[in-house]
Amino acid sequence: MKSALVLFSHGARDPEWSVPFRNIQRRIAARCPELAVELAFLELAPPTLADAVEKLAAAGHARITVAPLFMAPGGHLKRDLPRLLDELRGRHPGVVLELLPAIGDVEAVLDAISDWLVEMSRR
Amino acid sequence: MKSALVLFSHGARDPEWSVPFRNIQRRIAARCPELAVELAFLELAPPTLADAVEKLAAAGHARITVAPLFMAPGGHLKRDLPRLLDELRGRHPGVVLELLPAIGDVEAVLDAISDWLVEMSRR
Repeated sequence: MKSALVLFSHGARDPEWSVPFRNIQRRIAARCPELAVELAFLELAPPTLADAVEKLAAAGHARITVAPLFMAPGGHLKRDLPRLLDELRGRHPGVVLELLPAIGDVEAVLDAISDWLVEMSRR
Repeated sequence: MKSALVLFSHGARDPEWSVPFRNIQRRIAARCPELAVELAFLELAPPTLADAVEKLAAAGHARITVAPLFMAPGGHLKRDLPRLLDELRGRHPGVVLELLPAIGDVEAVLDAISDWLVEMSRR
């Protein structure tokens, strides 16, 4: 089954804003070249999550994992993202759409941030 | 010189939103008990950055490092945070106030996120 990943972030008008997400996309491509990875944004910049899922489904990906790259999901994301995913599941019945937790829920990410902050504070 | 760290994030009305930042605060306290660590928020929840700096300066901290825990800084943060820090430097002339980059600029954090995403995509 062809798998794909969507890196979903807030979005901003400034194109420079998306640099960290493009860096993550590049890192994943280096580690896992067989995995299709697309960016998508909640607002202010294209593509939308619906656009990214549409593109990946049209390319034959039958399992798409959506990764919200937010430290903590705000009310908007907590309420609206599950609803949007249900709508996309209805539109793409042949695709398994999975949602990952926010990165602030991931122990290894919290450890990396904490270690870096301790290092910076000891300089 | 007594050092301190401020974990600066967006803020939300939902108290649950701040859990990841409290988890980072707890991790740093475990690794580095001599470092004072406070949370502060851009909007929607107290305390403000000015409140946190005021509290730490009053407690005798002469070096305060501000860590913006954003994946990428939006226009608001890019423009307004440096101005706010200048204002706080004027108000607390005995305190060295340093600003760290956003966490999306930190190689080790991008690696931890990318490794986790690759792991989740391979399940």
